[in-house]
Amino acid sequence: MIELGPVARVIGLLLGVLALVMLVPALVDVTAGNPDWLSFVVSAAIAGFFGGMLILVTSRPGAFQLDLRQAFLLTALTWVVVPAFAALPMIGLGHGYTDAFFEAMSGLTTTGSTVLAGLDGLPPGILLWRSLLQWLGGIGIIVMAIVLLPFLRIGGMQLFRTESSEQSEKVVPRAFHMVASIGLVYLGLTIACAVAYALAEMSVFDAVNHAMATLSTGGYSTHDLSFGYFQRPLTHWIGTIFMIAGALPFLAYIRVLRGDRGALLRDTQVKALFVFFFLVIGSKAAWLAVTREMAFDEALQHTAFNVVSVVTTTGFASTDYTLWGPGAEAVFFVLMFLGGCAGSTSGAIKVYRHLIIWQLIRLKLRRLVAQHQVVPLRYGGSRVPEDVPGAVLAFVAALLGMVAIFTVLLGLMGLDLVTALTASATAITNVGPGLGPIIGPAGNFASLPDAAKWLLALAMMLGRLEIFTVLLLFTPDFWRR
Amino acid sequence: MIELGPVARVIGLLLGVLALVMLVPALVDVTAGNPDWLSFVVSAAIAGFFGGMLILVTSRPGAFQLDLRQAFLLTALTWVVVPAFAALPMIGLGHGYTDAFFEAMSGLTTTGSTVLAGLDGLPPGILLWRSLLQWLGGIGIIVMAIVLLPFLRIGGMQLFRTESSEQSEKVVPRAFHMVASIGLVYLGLTIACAVAYALAEMSVFDAVNHAMATLSTGGYSTHDLSFGYFQRPLTHWIGTIFMIAGALPFLAYIRVLRGDRGALLRDTQVKALFVFFFLVIGSKAAWLAVTREMAFDEALQHTAFNVVSVVTTTGFASTDYTLWGPGAEAVFFVLMFLGGCAGSTSGAIKVYRHLIIWQLIRLKLRRLVAQHQVVPLRYGGSRVPEDVPGAVLAFVAALLGMVAIFTVLLGLMGLDLVTALTASATAITNVGPGLGPIIGPAGNFASLPDAAKWLLALAMMLGRLEIFTVLLLFTPDFWRR
Repeated sequence: MIELGPVARVIGLLLGVLALVMLVPALVDVTAGNPDWLSFVVSAAIAGFFGGMLILVTSRPGAFQLDLRQAFLLTALTWVVVPAFAALPMIGLGHGYTDAFFEAMSGLTTTGSTVLAGLDGLPPGILLWRSLLQWLGGIGIIVMAIVLLPFLRIGGMQLFRTESSEQSEKVVPRAFHMVASIGLVYLGLTIACAVAYALAEMSVFDAVNHAMATLSTGGYSTHDLSFGYFQRPLTHWIGTIFMIAGALPFLAYIRVLRGDRGALLRDTQVKALFVFFFLVIGSKAAWLAVTREMAFDEALQHTAFNVVSVVTTTGFASTDYTLWGPGAEAVFFVLMFLGGCAGSTSGAIKVYRHLIIWQLIRLKLRRLVAQHQVVPLRYGGSRVPEDVPGAVLAFVAALLGMVAIFTVLLGLMGLDLVTALTASATAITNVGPGLGPIIGPAGNFASLPDAAKWLLALAMMLGRLEIFTVLLLFTPDFWRR
Repeated sequence: MIELGPVARVIGLLLGVLALVMLVPALVDVTAGNPDWLSFVVSAAIAGFFGGMLILVTSRPGAFQLDLRQAFLLTALTWVVVPAFAALPMIGLGHGYTDAFFEAMSGLTTTGSTVLAGLDGLPPGILLWRSLLQWLGGIGIIVMAIVLLPFLRIGGMQLFRTESSEQSEKVVPRAFHMVASIGLVYLGLTIACAVAYALAEMSVFDAVNHAMATLSTGGYSTHDLSFGYFQRPLTHWIGTIFMIAGALPFLAYIRVLRGDRGALLRDTQVKALFVFFFLVIGSKAAWLAVTREMAFDEALQHTAFNVVSVVTTTGFASTDYTLWGPGAEAVFFVLMFLGGCAGSTSGAIKVYRHLIIWQLIRLKLRRLVAQHQVVPLRYGGSRVPEDVPGAVLAFVAALLGMVAIFTVLLGLMGLDLVTALTASATAITNVGPGLGPIIGPAGNFASLPDAAKWLLALAMMLGRLEIFTVLLLFTPDFWRR
C-alpha cells in the first residue's frame, strides 16, 4: 500500500495556499464595494479548514519526503481536489456546482474554455479569481513538466532529463529549488506583460488579469469579446509576444539568466517553433490579404495573434477567426493539436514530439532505399534514447485515442460531430475554444449538458497531466507493490 | 539512375491485361444490346496499344528481374497509370475525365467513393467495370502487402516477414508464386460469396458485382441505395461475413489450405478483430434497440453490417447510419481509422498497429511504476523487433498528418469542416463514404469541385500504398544512388 499521509499533507498545504489566495479577490471586491467578497471569505474558510485538518491529521515528526508513487498520486489528486475547492466562490454564477467546477478546472488546467457569458458585467473579484487560477495552474504545470515527467519517462520527456534528475528518488527537495527559480522568471514575465498591456491600452485591472492568462497560456479574458475588446494593434502584438513567451521552455530562461545568453535561441524546440510561426502566419496572412481583401498589416496582426493563441494552447481570440472564409476552421482544427515547447505552460502534443516524428519519418524514408544503413535518431545534437519513439507513440496514440473516446461519448450525449470532436480536442489539448456555432471562439460552453461539462473537465485534467499520470492510477500494478 | 526499362515493361504488361479485361464489360454490353460496348472496345484498343508499345520498346533478351527501387517505382506508377487508362470507358458519365479518373482510382484503390448517381440506370458494362476494378485492385494490394511491404519494413510490416523474404532482393519470382496461391483463395472466396448472394436474393449480375466489391472491401454497388436495396436480412449477413473474409490476413488462408486448420483463428489480428466486433456491435446494437426502439435482431443486423463495412474499409451501407441519433456520426468517424488485418484488402491503420500501440501503452504504464523492469514488447507470442514502434509511429503520424493536410487543402477549396475532414479521412483510409449531408452514406462525391476530386484521388492512392511507398519517390536519396 501507498502511505497516503505525506500526500494528504501536501494537499492540505496547497488548500491552505488556495485559501490565502482567495483573500486577494475578496479584498478587491471589498475595495470595489461589491458584496461578492463574502463568497470568497466563506470559500477561503472552507478550504482553509479542510487544508488545516489534513495537515494536522497527517503531521509527523521527521524529515519529509515523497517517493515516486506518492508523487504521482499527489499530482493527480492535486488537479482534482484543488479545482473542487477553487470552484466554491463561483457556485452562484452558472448552473450550480457543475459550472463552477468546469470553470475552475478550465482555469487550473490553463485551458480557458468558459461557461460564463456576460464577463464584462461580472464583479472584479470573480474575474481576478479566474485569472489567478490560470496563473497558478501555469506555474504548477511547469513544475510538473520539469520535475516529474523527465524522471518518469512519460511521453518521451526523458529527452529533457538533467543530470540531477538521475540522482535520487527524492522528488521534493529538487522541486523546491526549481520552483523558486522558475517562479521568479514566471513572475517577472507576468509583470513585464502587465506593464506592457497597461502602457499600450488596458486598464490596470485588465492588464493584470490578461497578463496572468497570457503567461499561463490560459486564455481567460475579462471581456466576452476576448482580445477583440482591445482596439490597438500594439496590444495584440504584445499579447502575441507574451503568449509565445509562455510557450517557451522555462529551463532555457533560467540558463539565460545564469549567463548563457544564447540558450533560448539555440534551443531546438524554440527554433522549430519560430520557423513554424514564420511560415504559417506569413502564408495565412498573405492568403487572407488576397482572398478577403484585408490590409496586409491587419491580416498579419490577426493571423499572428490567433494562430499563436491556438498553437500555444492559450485560447484568446482577437476576432471570430472561423469566419475567415473556407478552410479557416480546418486550419484552426489542425493547429489545436500542435502545442508549444515542453517545460512550458503550453499543452497538446508539443514541439519536440513533432520534431521526433518528423525525423523518424525522414529516417524511415532514407532507410527504405538504403536498407542496411542504420542512422540513429538525433535531437538537438545528441542521440535520442532508444525508448523515446515508443514513448512518443504511446503518448500521441493515447491523446488521440482519448479524443476519439470523448468525441463518441459527447456525441452520445447529443452534441453534433463538429462540437463533440472539437470540444474533446480543445479540452484534451487545453486550448480553450472549440469550433462550430456553439463552442467556437465567439461562443461558450454554457449550453452544453451537465454531463458533457463533467466529461470535458475530466478531459482537461487528463490532457494537462499528459494522460499517463492519471491512467497510471487505474492500473493494479500501481497499488500492488 | 534507375533503369526504367523493366518497370515500363511490367506496366506495359499490366495495361495489356487491363485491355483484355475491358473486353468483358464490352461483351456484357453487346449481350445486353447496349451501345456502350463501343467505348470499352475503343478504350481497350488505346490501353492495348500503349501497353504493347511499352513492351516492344523495353523488350530485351535475358532473365527478367526487378531490384528494390524498381519495385517501389513500379508499385507507385501502377496505381497512377492503370487508373489513368481504366478511366477511359467512364469518360462519358460524369464531368469528363476528372470524374472518370476519380471513379477509376476509387475503384482500383478499393475505396468505393463514387461520383456517379443513378447507378440503377447505368448500362451493365459500366457497373461490371467498376466492380472489376475493385476486384483487381484488391488482389493487387494483397500482393503488395505480402510481397513488398514486409521486405521494406514499412509501417511495422517487418513483423510479417517470412523466412523466404529475407533471402534475396529479387522480388519478382517470389511474387509470382505468391500471387498464384493468394489469387486462388481470393477467387474461391469471391465465387462462394457470389453464389451465396444469388441464393439469398440477388440477381446473378448483382451477385457477381457485389461479390467482387465485397471481397476486395471496395464497396461499389450497382444500386444508389447500396445494400439498402436488398431486403432480406440473410443477404446482409452474407455481406457482413464476406466483408470480414476480405479483411482477414490472406497468408493465414493459405496456411489453412496447407493443413494448418487453426491458422486463421490462432492469428493475433483475427482474434483481436473478432473480439472488437463482438464488443462494439453488441453494445451499439443494444444502444440502438433501447434508444431507437428498434427490434434487437434488426438493430444487430444493421449494426453488424455497417460497423463491419466501415472497419473493414469496404464502404457499403445498408441504411443511412448517420441518422441513428446522437453519437452515430462520431462513432463512425472514429471507426474509419481502424482497418482490418495486414495482408488483406483492407486499408486504414490496421489491427496489428492498434495492438502494438495498445501493448506499448500498457508497458509504459507498467514501467512508470517499476522503473527498472524492462519488459519487451511482444506480438503473437514472439518479441517485437526494436524498430517496430518507431515504424508504427512514423506510419500513423504520416497517415494522420496527411489527413490534416488534405483537410486544410479541401477546406481552402470551400468545403465545410465535416465534409473536408471526413473526405480526407475516408479517402486515405480507403473506406468510401464520408459523413455529413454531401458525402455521407446517402450522398456521393459528384458535387465536389474538380480540384477536390483530384486531391482525393491522390489521397486514396497515398493511403492505399501505405504513404511511404509514394513519399519515397519524392526524396533525393531515392534517385541518387
